[in-house]
Amino acid sequence: MNPCVIGIDIGGTNTVLGLVERSGNCVAEATLPTRGAEPVGQFLPRLYEHVEILLQRATDEGLTLQGIGIGAPNANFYTGTIEHPPNLAWEGVTPLAEFVRERFGVPVALTNDANAAALGEMFFGAAQGMKNFVVVTLGTGLGSGIVVDGNVLYGSDGFAGELGHVTVVQGGRQCGCGRRGCLETYASATGIRRTVAELIADRMDAETNASPLRDIPFSALTAAHIAETAKLGDALALEAFERTGDILGRALANTIAYLSPEAIILFGGLANAGELLLQPTRRAMQAHTLNIFRGKTLLLVSTLMERNAAVLGASALIWKELAA
Amino acid sequence: MNPCVIGIDIGGTNTVLGLVERSGNCVAEATLPTRGAEPVGQFLPRLYEHVEILLQRATDEGLTLQGIGIGAPNANFYTGTIEHPPNLAWEGVTPLAEFVRERFGVPVALTNDANAAALGEMFFGAAQGMKNFVVVTLGTGLGSGIVVDGNVLYGSDGFAGELGHVTVVQGGRQCGCGRRGCLETYASATGIRRTVAELIADRMDAETNASPLRDIPFSALTAAHIAETAKLGDALALEAFERTGDILGRALANTIAYLSPEAIILFGGLANAGELLLQPTRRAMQAHTLNIFRGKTLLLVSTLMERNAAVLGASALIWKELAA
Repeated sequence: MNPCVIGIDIGGTNTVLGLVERSGNCVAEATLPTRGAEPVGQFLPRLYEHVEILLQRATDEGLTLQGIGIGAPNANFYTGTIEHPPNLAWEGVTPLAEFVRERFGVPVALTNDANAAALGEMFFGAAQGMKNFVVVTLGTGLGSGIVVDGNVLYGSDGFAGELGHVTVVQGGRQCGCGRRGCLETYASATGIRRTVAELIADRMDAETNASPLRDIPFSALTAAHIAETAKLGDALALEAFERTGDILGRALANTIAYLSPEAIILFGGLANAGELLLQPTRRAMQAHTLNIFRGKTLLLVSTLMERNAAVLGASALIWKELAA
Repeated sequence: MNPCVIGIDIGGTNTVLGLVERSGNCVAEATLPTRGAEPVGQFLPRLYEHVEILLQRATDEGLTLQGIGIGAPNANFYTGTIEHPPNLAWEGVTPLAEFVRERFGVPVALTNDANAAALGEMFFGAAQGMKNFVVVTLGTGLGSGIVVDGNVLYGSDGFAGELGHVTVVQGGRQCGCGRRGCLETYASATGIRRTVAELIADRMDAETNASPLRDIPFSALTAAHIAETAKLGDALALEAFERTGDILGRALANTIAYLSPEAIILFGGLANAGELLLQPTRRAMQAHTLNIFRGKTLLLVSTLMERNAAVLGASALIWKELAA
């Protein structure tokens, strides 16, 4: 019997799960709505139903389940619990790893989605063979997974690696965390939308007056719009990427001073913009990196975005535990 | 025969070494001038002479030498080399660990002084029992040693943990590294002297006009002067500590977002100012820490400053290697 694991990614909207072999081959996948407004007691039976279907599939394929890895918001690797998740109505502290372990009788590990993404890159993606690197997820917010000497950096409480909440502009933009100037208010899908609004307020010149971004209400504007418009050569959209990359690159130069990683890997919606974002980010990162580190750290884009990165990340988490 | 090690700290001015038992008891110590202008080939025979004296002492005391730990500028733990040290005329890359290992036939480990200080705190000082913490050395510059899961964070190249060169003020003060706005240009013995100069330039009011700091030329001003003057209630000196602590505390709040350490331990000349520095630092750190981390990270002062911290740190480095 060949070994396999199940990787589960619990997102605010959907939960995705898959049956994954050690090679990263995803034998089967499923998706269910998370229904964040439901209590966890209603979510779990629906989740278990889908796990059972994957288990049946494993049996059919001659695969033996070795463990289950879960990526979820506010997940604590040390305790296997989910603590006060911001987008789920799961009250207090949910011992999710324990619940799932008791139900299926295999080892279960739990961490947040950015840490799972980092392990996914290490096992199956751009960080294969690396022991020191950082994955930065550029979605609605900015998450990060830091790997030091082959292990995720969890810190004293299990929650380390909150690069999105490093202050980059003193007294800067209001952040959902209640503070101001956090990196994710600039460098994220939401951040670049805010930068477009800032540029619309700031600029009043021939070069940017005709920008089609001026015709889209903020609430309807997406990072994909901005990228498409920039690719058509629109000055305002291009400037939004320049500013975003400049702030992100400066923050990554500081990250290098802390961690001296082999690579920083960008992941998520905004990273889909590719060179539009990478060029200004790399330029600022190199310009602001301390001389002893300059040119040492690669800036890469995830190679898992075309594949089911969230499931692969959650599966890498449990493959890593099983190997330990 | 009881085991002992020799800890060696190579500084720009003096080199200090000591014979240290596993308990941290320092049986004997010696100091020699480093003479940074000399090539390493002239330094080593002088160093070896002092090591021999300590070895004789070990024999007299019934102690067996197990290894030698060395703290030195630009020291690379991975390679055991010293690479282009800023204050020493040692050209290129010196394989110091290899030289010392061949001469004395025991294991030798090498790292920079801030990393050694961190291990010293873990073995003998304020970080005993901790696995995740940061030591910040506030001397002429600002150094840092980061410990993650009980191990020093060396990064991909052996040089990680350069907190002194995180940019805290965009376009801020000129730094010796060639960039601007690095943390050490504000939070260090030199940094607070510069802050006094800034305040002299800035303020012109009754409260600060009579400050005795206005009578001391910048070249003669020390951090100890500023601390003594602040203790007498001088408004300008107190404001210098406020500003220093504010910038340091904000930087430490960012450090917490990266690492979520159990404690941050301040060490070195400026840390001798005690509560003068700790109060504003703690206030800013707490005010700017992300809510999920708030109140979790202790801000402490080294407990080794009264003892020979540099020798203890270097000895902890080799005790750690011997235990591995």
